[in-house]
Amino acid sequence: MTALEVHLARRPVGVPSLDDFAFVEITPPALGPGEVRVRNHVMSVDPYMRGRMNDVKSYAPPFPLGAPMEGGAVGDIVESTVDSLPVGTFVLHNAGWRSEVVLPGAAVVEVDPSLPLGAYLGVLGMPGLTAYAGLLDVAEFQPGDTVFVSAAAGAVGAVVGQIARLRGAKRVIGSAGSAEKVRYLLDELGFDAAFNYKDDRVVKQLAAAAPEGIEVYFDNVGGEHLEAALSVLNVHGRIAVCGMISQYNATEPNPAPRNLIQIVSKRLTVRGLLVRDHADRRADFLREVGAWVRSGELRYTETVVDGLRNAPSAFLSLLEGGNTGKMLVRLI
Amino acid sequence: MTALEVHLARRPVGVPSLDDFAFVEITPPALGPGEVRVRNHVMSVDPYMRGRMNDVKSYAPPFPLGAPMEGGAVGDIVESTVDSLPVGTFVLHNAGWRSEVVLPGAAVVEVDPSLPLGAYLGVLGMPGLTAYAGLLDVAEFQPGDTVFVSAAAGAVGAVVGQIARLRGAKRVIGSAGSAEKVRYLLDELGFDAAFNYKDDRVVKQLAAAAPEGIEVYFDNVGGEHLEAALSVLNVHGRIAVCGMISQYNATEPNPAPRNLIQIVSKRLTVRGLLVRDHADRRADFLREVGAWVRSGELRYTETVVDGLRNAPSAFLSLLEGGNTGKMLVRLI
Repeated sequence: MTALEVHLARRPVGVPSLDDFAFVEITPPALGPGEVRVRNHVMSVDPYMRGRMNDVKSYAPPFPLGAPMEGGAVGDIVESTVDSLPVGTFVLHNAGWRSEVVLPGAAVVEVDPSLPLGAYLGVLGMPGLTAYAGLLDVAEFQPGDTVFVSAAAGAVGAVVGQIARLRGAKRVIGSAGSAEKVRYLLDELGFDAAFNYKDDRVVKQLAAAAPEGIEVYFDNVGGEHLEAALSVLNVHGRIAVCGMISQYNATEPNPAPRNLIQIVSKRLTVRGLLVRDHADRRADFLREVGAWVRSGELRYTETVVDGLRNAPSAFLSLLEGGNTGKMLVRLI
Repeated sequence: MTALEVHLARRPVGVPSLDDFAFVEITPPALGPGEVRVRNHVMSVDPYMRGRMNDVKSYAPPFPLGAPMEGGAVGDIVESTVDSLPVGTFVLHNAGWRSEVVLPGAAVVEVDPSLPLGAYLGVLGMPGLTAYAGLLDVAEFQPGDTVFVSAAAGAVGAVVGQIARLRGAKRVIGSAGSAEKVRYLLDELGFDAAFNYKDDRVVKQLAAAAPEGIEVYFDNVGGEHLEAALSVLNVHGRIAVCGMISQYNATEPNPAPRNLIQIVSKRLTVRGLLVRDHADRRADFLREVGAWVRSGELRYTETVVDGLRNAPSAFLSLLEGGNTGKMLVRLI
């Protein structure tokens, strides 16, 4: 009986490739006291993982070389020495990128398997809470605001745009990287305007979509998108910076945005966002967004790739925008 | 009897030159009802004026070509049709860059001539209020913070650093552009550390001056200074962006800072600052900073150039850092 793990084999320079990952068969360790063995059903691939592949100190430590990568996953307990976590319990934890894992009971959180397991990694999980706290607390969204979100068809962006709509935005605008995603934003998620950033300069398309400017920009992309938003934001506008996926594979510093002086001219507020700061909002988030998910007012989509051996390619695809909504890998 | 005005003769590209200004002798207009004639004693030159020389819509309209420039000035009333503003009253107004001017009574504010007139343009004027509101409200300074301010020997920076010290900063660090200014910060203004940004890379000097990092950066400079501060700021640090003097003469977009992703990693807040938003703090400011000026706890320095015909060269010198403290032009 062996288990399969995905290890970081070497640190990528620029765009990662499949050779940066290694598949390793291990003999699973025996269970100690206070531990559970979890068989993973579904795991998450997320843009932030690209940063952890570099050997650079950041908000999360680098993935070590020659060890399994980490990330959100949901599975069921197949062996347990913890009374409160019997065999058959479904749990959320951070030991993805492997078929099974032994964890202390304190490292897992029980979830209700009557909901799709992937939801705990997406709309009701870390990306959803990121969207909720980022829009409402970090960007200080107010009803009547016009909101622009980049990577709007992604796991975070799709929730940002819909919360803005449901909370009374004047206008919700999204950018994405394909005509299909643009249609998805307009037809499925109820965005007021959306554009493909590859069609023309972002600032031109954004200005056309927002003739009266914007109050809030939720940034998942950085670079040209951030520059465009700085240009189109109204006085006293706010930017929540959640990520800068345009920069993650860059080997040279990216010169944009070149109009930071707009921060002064318009007295803008630019704030960084990490979901770990917002755990106190989880209950509000689950109540409000959970209700919208159940009622169907807030929709979500998953892009699911089958098989742990396809996890590296799913991750590479994510970095190139190959997903609509939350990107997941199904193991079972 | 003629008056002398300094007009904007042409719009500079990059670094302005004396040829961008013209001296124009005019016959002063007669006084209408509700107007006063002010003879200017002292006028201000400020970095923000560089922006108004461009034909770019910004928070303040461009200076028109072939008309007098504008800016803070203090003078005495030499002719009046306003009962509440008799001849001999000293007033603050925004019609600098000329020897005398006719203004509506509502466009001037009476000042007490027992204080040095230049103080109304500096430590107790717009730069002082900018420092006060920027540090306390925009950067949300708290006692115990370590504060870094760039252009620290300038009219705004010198007040920022001293308010931080008097309000209980753990450590106050300043950068300036000469060894003499660095000595001034350390010996006269009570900064804990200061460096000449021309001596070495800013990030290296700042990191050495702030071994435990900084909580607040008050940005007057942008560019490399902003990049260095992003690198050295601690988690949840705040930046008040007051100006970006390093960019004002740039004809090509400046690529720094290249580490904006730190805004996410450290959950920083970056906020723009214009003094016009903070008029409600003027009374607090005058009470608190006025008391420190009278007691000598807060010191200020002026760099004074004599003669309206030298105002353009004073302004050009300011843009190159030729001032310590507030740069003024004395007309009388």
